[in-house]
Amino acid sequence: MAQRLSWGMVGGGEGSQIGPAHRLGAQADGLYAFVAGALDADPEKGRAYARSLGIAPDRAYGDWREMLAGERGRDNRIDLVTVATPNATHFEITKGFLEAGFNVLCEKPMTMTVEEGEEIVRVARKSGKVCAVNYCYSAYPMIRQMRAMVAAGDLGAIRCVVANFSHGHHAAGDDAENPRVRWRYDPAQAGVSGQMADCGIHALHLASFILGDEVERLSADFASTVPGRVLEDDAMVSFRTSRGTVGRLWTSTIALGRQHGLDIQIFGETGGLRWASEQPNQVYYHRLGGRVEIIEKGEAGIFPEAARLSRVAIAHPEGFPLAVANIYVDLAAAIRGEATGALPSAEDGLRSMAAVHAAVASAGAQGAWVDARPPMFR
Amino acid sequence: MAQRLSWGMVGGGEGSQIGPAHRLGAQADGLYAFVAGALDADPEKGRAYARSLGIAPDRAYGDWREMLAGERGRDNRIDLVTVATPNATHFEITKGFLEAGFNVLCEKPMTMTVEEGEEIVRVARKSGKVCAVNYCYSAYPMIRQMRAMVAAGDLGAIRCVVANFSHGHHAAGDDAENPRVRWRYDPAQAGVSGQMADCGIHALHLASFILGDEVERLSADFASTVPGRVLEDDAMVSFRTSRGTVGRLWTSTIALGRQHGLDIQIFGETGGLRWASEQPNQVYYHRLGGRVEIIEKGEAGIFPEAARLSRVAIAHPEGFPLAVANIYVDLAAAIRGEATGALPSAEDGLRSMAAVHAAVASAGAQGAWVDARPPMFR
Amino acid sequence: MAQRLSWGMVGGGEGSQIGPAHRLGAQADGLYAFVAGALDADPEKGRAYARSLGIAPDRAYGDWREMLAGERGRDNRIDLVTVATPNATHFEITKGFLEAGFNVLCEKPMTMTVEEGEEIVRVARKSGKVCAVNYCYSAYPMIRQMRAMVAAGDLGAIRCVVANFSHGHHAAGDDAENPRVRWRYDPAQAGVSGQMADCGIHALHLASFILGDEVERLSADFASTVPGRVLEDDAMVSFRTSRGTVGRLWTSTIALGRQHGLDIQIFGETGGLRWASEQPNQVYYHRLGGRVEIIEKGEAGIFPEAARLSRVAIAHPEGFPLAVANIYVDLAAAIRGEATGALPSAEDGLRSMAAVHAAVASAGAQGAWVDARPPMFR
Amino acid sequence: MAQRLSWGMVGGGEGSQIGPAHRLGAQADGLYAFVAGALDADPEKGRAYARSLGIAPDRAYGDWREMLAGERGRDNRIDLVTVATPNATHFEITKGFLEAGFNVLCEKPMTMTVEEGEEIVRVARKSGKVCAVNYCYSAYPMIRQMRAMVAAGDLGAIRCVVANFSHGHHAAGDDAENPRVRWRYDPAQAGVSGQMADCGIHALHLASFILGDEVERLSADFASTVPGRVLEDDAMVSFRTSRGTVGRLWTSTIALGRQHGLDIQIFGETGGLRWASEQPNQVYYHRLGGRVEIIEKGEAGIFPEAARLSRVAIAHPEGFPLAVANIYVDLAAAIRGEATGALPSAEDGLRSMAAVHAAVASAGAQGAWVDARPPMFR
Repeated sequence: MAQRLSWGMVGGGEGSQIGPAHRLGAQADGLYAFVAGALDADPEKGRAYARSLGIAPDRAYGDWREMLAGERGRDNRIDLVTVATPNATHFEITKGFLEAGFNVLCEKPMTMTVEEGEEIVRVARKSGKVCAVNYCYSAYPMIRQMRAMVAAGDLGAIRCVVANFSHGHHAAGDDAENPRVRWRYDPAQAGVSGQMADCGIHALHLASFILGDEVERLSADFASTVPGRVLEDDAMVSFRTSRGTVGRLWTSTIALGRQHGLDIQIFGETGGLRWASEQPNQVYYHRLGGRVEIIEKGEAGIFPEAARLSRVAIAHPEGFPLAVANIYVDLAAAIRGEATGALPSAEDGLRSMAAVHAAVASAGAQGAWVDARPPMFR
Repeated sequence: MAQRLSWGMVGGGEGSQIGPAHRLGAQADGLYAFVAGALDADPEKGRAYARSLGIAPDRAYGDWREMLAGERGRDNRIDLVTVATPNATHFEITKGFLEAGFNVLCEKPMTMTVEEGEEIVRVARKSGKVCAVNYCYSAYPMIRQMRAMVAAGDLGAIRCVVANFSHGHHAAGDDAENPRVRWRYDPAQAGVSGQMADCGIHALHLASFILGDEVERLSADFASTVPGRVLEDDAMVSFRTSRGTVGRLWTSTIALGRQHGLDIQIFGETGGLRWASEQPNQVYYHRLGGRVEIIEKGEAGIFPEAARLSRVAIAHPEGFPLAVANIYVDLAAAIRGEATGALPSAEDGLRSMAAVHAAVASAGAQGAWVDARPPMFR
Repeated sequence: MAQRLSWGMVGGGEGSQIGPAHRLGAQADGLYAFVAGALDADPEKGRAYARSLGIAPDRAYGDWREMLAGERGRDNRIDLVTVATPNATHFEITKGFLEAGFNVLCEKPMTMTVEEGEEIVRVARKSGKVCAVNYCYSAYPMIRQMRAMVAAGDLGAIRCVVANFSHGHHAAGDDAENPRVRWRYDPAQAGVSGQMADCGIHALHLASFILGDEVERLSADFASTVPGRVLEDDAMVSFRTSRGTVGRLWTSTIALGRQHGLDIQIFGETGGLRWASEQPNQVYYHRLGGRVEIIEKGEAGIFPEAARLSRVAIAHPEGFPLAVANIYVDLAAAIRGEATGALPSAEDGLRSMAAVHAAVASAGAQGAWVDARPPMFR
Repeated sequence: MAQRLSWGMVGGGEGSQIGPAHRLGAQADGLYAFVAGALDADPEKGRAYARSLGIAPDRAYGDWREMLAGERGRDNRIDLVTVATPNATHFEITKGFLEAGFNVLCEKPMTMTVEEGEEIVRVARKSGKVCAVNYCYSAYPMIRQMRAMVAAGDLGAIRCVVANFSHGHHAAGDDAENPRVRWRYDPAQAGVSGQMADCGIHALHLASFILGDEVERLSADFASTVPGRVLEDDAMVSFRTSRGTVGRLWTSTIALGRQHGLDIQIFGETGGLRWASEQPNQVYYHRLGGRVEIIEKGEAGIFPEAARLSRVAIAHPEGFPLAVANIYVDLAAAIRGEATGALPSAEDGLRSMAAVHAAVASAGAQGAWVDARPPMFR
């Protein structure tokens, strides 16, 4: 067993949902020691909370700049920093840590603009450090199984992918009284896009990830179904990938009854796959001419890429928090120079931003097809 | 109990799938006597098969014109004729029988063009007779329940409808050797559209039917994913209804693993509904702020519009053939002058044709939004 | 196509559930003409109702004896009579028609006692006529598929069968006000057993039917969970078959949430099967060392025994009423001398009665193991 | 946030399944520091593995006696020890640590005999320390929800509970070549019972836990379906609880197709509940006269007892490893004197042993009903 890595966090303070998710993810497998943090926008609250979590006082920082300054000067500097701050700050913090030679895991969306995304890619490449984006759904073992099956040709050439991330958690329409919902639809706070930037990119990344292929062009239809919302709460995007696969992406926040709402279907020449995040431990596989089979961990036919990310025996369900943990498993491998090839990268973060901006442009142009690739990848 | 109606059929000869489905549907509840038929393109085979099914020799006809001539002259002429012939012939046969004063149930698609559709609507209106189109999914009890719930306001104003009819039964790509598949993608035989005209219109009708609302404009993306296909085997249509509801329709023939493939979700201000044809006896209902509930026949809360179309007690499943039978139940009521208000009409058949042609036009114009209404309804 | 058989019915009058189920079942496929009936305990109501259903006045009988007398004297006597009267009358009516040379379909339970059951078996054998019992669940195509798979050795030797028929439809406990529930638990009306005789025997027949094996001995535990009930509303029976298969049977009427409640699992040396009546068109099959597969009609691997009883294409669900119709399909074949080998027989009806009485005896003897076979088969 | 507790482990060495599960469970929420261990039967391997996991050399022990001696002498002795050794050693290790004043979490089964179980209960009571048994399924949030609903009277008096833990993982019958399976059915290694002692007790504990009631008497049927097995691989137990609830428990290792195989149904006067471990984040609830509702975390109606054990938002699944973690959450509370009232106790461990021995006795006496309570609780 290798030495534990040391890990720190920016953001994720008391009361946040994302902080505990990252701490559980990083510590679940004993791979990281949590040793540094700038956890809160309020420096004093952040320091106190960090100490309460067992961080030594000299590494309980007031803000990310202080943390960057403090850590860069240490011999035992953190091996990895997680950036889990408000979206608009991801860019500068991620950039700052990368430039100082730290490995970074950035929450999604990595940036607010395509230009910023290209800048992160350039900085990350120059740094030689790991820069990952937390597209954690891609780390579910069964998603890795799907990716491995596609790569192995089990489905033949892929004809069509259908990815949805549509839930009903903003259906109440109580934006006026509910700031946690309201900001999502306010361009001043959320940028150019609402649900597409929040959840759509998860589904889009999943599609690209499983296919090993990238969105090339798209046509979008955006709707704001709740009065008063400026940004979209329901969006449909049709796309084509580099290899010509047809894509369908529906994302919504008003889909009452879809409790989580992320699912994906892959259709190839010789097989189809279906997975839903509400039941993440199974994949439905239809082999052309055969029956639908339920793929389950712990059985014959599981690819090593999936098997390595399961902790308990067949049919003992593992859930979302351990998908996040799997990102940290892959990060530890990457930091140690053992490339897994599957960690969501700065390039992925950039592609998401380009797709969001393309969708906004298409929806604004009556559904015209537009190039969805970042300029630097065209 | 009322007197049985007398019923005849054009098409549906030996070996067809649709013939037995109609005969079971018409006879399941003892409402009709099957007394006349022109069942086959080959007159002799048709007459022989009709006689083998118990039709009297003088009403076992060689073709539809002979049948029309024979029946119109009788005192005990058939009360209803079902037209289940190849698609391209629906128009003239339906028109012929309507003009002669017969009630008609026409298989879908009702016509090949919008102009023909408008002609049928005019003829049907002038005739004063019942002209129905066999959108049989709309006669599932749980679909009627959904329609009644929407009408009762149980979901508030409807924001979004998502309807899919995507299966994998043409995924083999063996068109060259398989004429039953090949013709669907050949404009000379199938007209302007493949899967949209074949299955998409079922899903679209279902959406309109449940909402009590009509498609007004749409944007489409068509793909032919199997080499050699001219017409689409995968289509995405975004639409808006007259009342502004957002619509998403995906239809495909290459979606391996979707065994039947028809499902629909309705999202309103205060509730959401979900139904799938593979499990047609249940509806999932999510009331805003409540839990997801499983609606089942035979329980409290079932609307009379749904309850009247069930034959057996709670949780004894009823399937597709009895949905067809329900169309005949409603037809018998309509013929007797008891309007149910729910029978798919010539107007519905026309609207489908208009939507198909609009989708073809939009897909050919890079997804431009186009008017989806028949000219006569604009 | 063969000539239609002529069919009559005793019982199943206006307002009964079972009458329409049989009429739909007999007529769905055009195999029978409904020509005679003694439908009601009230002769006048029965005659009027029969005439309203299209029965000729001279074959609309006032009671079963009148019907037996009338039909036996006709040249065109009915080919089949269905007995759907109150349970206590099944014996004499079935016996009467068999002795007069009619084919009979009797509702379950065939008799109230084992002695009566043995008498029916003797009479049926002597008559040379078809005597079937309406264990209609056994006629679901997927149940036939399971039986064929077991017979083909797909599961190896069978180790264990688990059959449940547990619903919650008597959970309200309103017996005092609800005579339709109350009589089930009253020995004066229902005989020695409540739920075991009502539903348990369906599950037990299904187990025997699929295995091609019979219950040999059993141990039972009965409970009356609702105060005031004399007969059991919840029963557990463990059993062994002739070939040594271990059986588990749970049946209940107070199992709230189980909407239909019939399901069965079969476990063999090399495979397992699972089926539930609420989703009757699919079977789950687990091959040792493989994945769980979903067996669906219309696909490769469906045995002819199952395929012949489906009417519509893959994934178009067929439900309970068409399982009843399948019994009539098999009856028509049997009457024509084409043995299907799968029709539930008088012997099956007798075995059920013996098992019920054995379970009552065991439950009364603190779960002691008792012989479950009819004396004449020991 | 409170100070982290210090934790050690006996057993769970390299290659074991249970070791990582406990380490993840203890560390997932940052509640414990892992500081001591005697992890392997081979002292050197155990010490080396402990050090590789970050244990200080002086607390990396060679065996449990060395660990007990080492820890009892320290000021900063561990707050909790987990016993995850082979079953036959649980008794002496648990007893030893309790007597020395340590809190203990013991893997199930707590002991091999009822007498040992009673001894542990006495020692635990005398020690005043926490002695818990790892019935981890009881710590799933939705199980806590069910327990809270029953306690709140949402189901009325409970009439019946049906608990199954039947899987197919020993169906291969390759005992001769597979020592990991073989020992389970060998009395010399496994004691008086096979599957009942291994999995049946989980299901039985769950039933008692949810009901807040205890098994009083039972009747059992055991079968060894695979040739060569002495102990049972399939068992059926009917029971009655102290309050008269009827119980049904089926447990099997040859149930091919049941991938995990633990599920439970509770039926009361006014409601029914259903839960399955393969989809642990949902409970199906049927209110008498209402519809089946799907209970989901993060919604209205979740009891605090359930909500406190969820880490992520609605519909983000949490799985088995976090149920184990919940046991550690409750242990931390108990150690700090905040009684949760829900932690599986030494009394529960004893009751399981009494039930197993009672079932063995009943099965050996032709299903006779026997007292299932430990002598000290009669």
